[in-house]
Amino acid sequence: MDDHTKLILEVSAKPLFPPVYASARLPAAADALEAAVTAAKAGADPATFFWVDREDRLEAAIVLQPEQALEQALPILHVGMIGIGDALGALVPPQMAVTFGWPDRLEANGGLVGGLRLAAPAGCAPDAVPDWLVLGLTILVQRRLIGGEEPGMDPTRTALHEEGCGELTVPDILEAFSRHFLLWVNRFEEEGPRPCLEHWLERGTDYSRSTAVTLRDSVHAGTFIGLDDQGGMLLKTETVQALPLATVLAGPSWSL
Amino acid sequence: MDDHTKLILEVSAKPLFPPVYASARLPAAADALEAAVTAAKAGADPATFFWVDREDRLEAAIVLQPEQALEQALPILHVGMIGIGDALGALVPPQMAVTFGWPDRLEANGGLVGGLRLAAPAGCAPDAVPDWLVLGLTILVQRRLIGGEEPGMDPTRTALHEEGCGELTVPDILEAFSRHFLLWVNRFEEEGPRPCLEHWLERGTDYSRSTAVTLRDSVHAGTFIGLDDQGGMLLKTETVQALPLATVLAGPSWSL
Repeated sequence: MDDHTKLILEVSAKPLFPPVYASARLPAAADALEAAVTAAKAGADPATFFWVDREDRLEAAIVLQPEQALEQALPILHVGMIGIGDALGALVPPQMAVTFGWPDRLEANGGLVGGLRLAAPAGCAPDAVPDWLVLGLTILVQRRLIGGEEPGMDPTRTALHEEGCGELTVPDILEAFSRHFLLWVNRFEEEGPRPCLEHWLERGTDYSRSTAVTLRDSVHAGTFIGLDDQGGMLLKTETVQALPLATVLAGPSWSL
Repeated sequence: MDDHTKLILEVSAKPLFPPVYASARLPAAADALEAAVTAAKAGADPATFFWVDREDRLEAAIVLQPEQALEQALPILHVGMIGIGDALGALVPPQMAVTFGWPDRLEANGGLVGGLRLAAPAGCAPDAVPDWLVLGLTILVQRRLIGGEEPGMDPTRTALHEEGCGELTVPDILEAFSRHFLLWVNRFEEEGPRPCLEHWLERGTDYSRSTAVTLRDSVHAGTFIGLDDQGGMLLKTETVQALPLATVLAGPSWSL
């Protein structure tokens, strides 16, 4: 960001968040999630919105105070994803596909472009209401390409500016995200997880198709048929068993 | 059977089997399978065809000398089923459906009408060539209905004469079965089990559909997708597992 742009930002106080949020700007080297967790542990207000002031990468984290048990509150991660999905959907060219990789990945035209994180108090039981949650969001806006790397060489990784969004700035995305996220948080509180989860599935990569997910070093393969109420991925697998014909040697299955 | 008919049978030596068989007639109270097993143990020739001389019920058993290991020889039960299936198919009115219930049941218009049995030397290992096998066949030709029972009251059970085959006699069926079985035994020996198994599936109840099979007191449910080379029923089942979203609390699935 050049000095001129910085000046404009400060003057116009960009990003401008809806009043429910308390904006907390962090220097370029800071870790937004770490800062938000530290603040949450110290009793920071819910809706404190930490964001890192850099232009190559969006790094943000929001302090949340859920009313549900941890297990029921987990889909707030998906609420965050549909918030950024809708925000990008409104900002980027229509030919750019914004999709979600379960559980927490953001994809642009099929390549990994960012992700979300969720932090809870250590040792919080699934059925206990956590004192706080922190939702983190990271998006690569520009990439520094190393050595002979060129955009598109590795189709599994990308940055927004490589996908035809060269005009898009971090504050633009932060503002749009803050609004869309707020909308969906309210819907989540009022209507429960299903509307959010169904909306998530609209951008869900491999939804209704065969997929393989690596989770804690084990691969789970199957058909991705939906999400459960706690945001878990429902994976249908088929097994074929052979009932042995040798059973007939023990006697007939019929009697007349 | 009246005396006149009996006389004709004796004169014409009905049933007339193809010369490969040795016909062994048993009195009405005999158990064909038991008689054939006793004879097989005592070294009876292969293709000895035991049949019980009664008109209400077809009871027959054939001594066989397989060349394969027991495991590979098991589908001879299915060869027996397609033998009787084709025999009945040629004898009964075309509107009568002859079907097979895995592993060993014969059905007429959906009701149980008979079945097959297979006996092998006790303790014969699956990979050992048995000294003998005995294939048993039982069909209800006429039923004695008890109390207030009427044909069709219980659609799961029937007899050939209740399904519009009042003209059909036990010797007719025995003759047709002996010919069709011989044909398919030869095909089984020359081409292996697949042609027989595919032909079996043409009359296989619930083939390609959802089914539930009770085997040794446990119920197996799934889609009946075929038979393996040993005549085992291939049952496809679907399971849905939920990959928990709580995995995100341990750290992101992505790195940028």
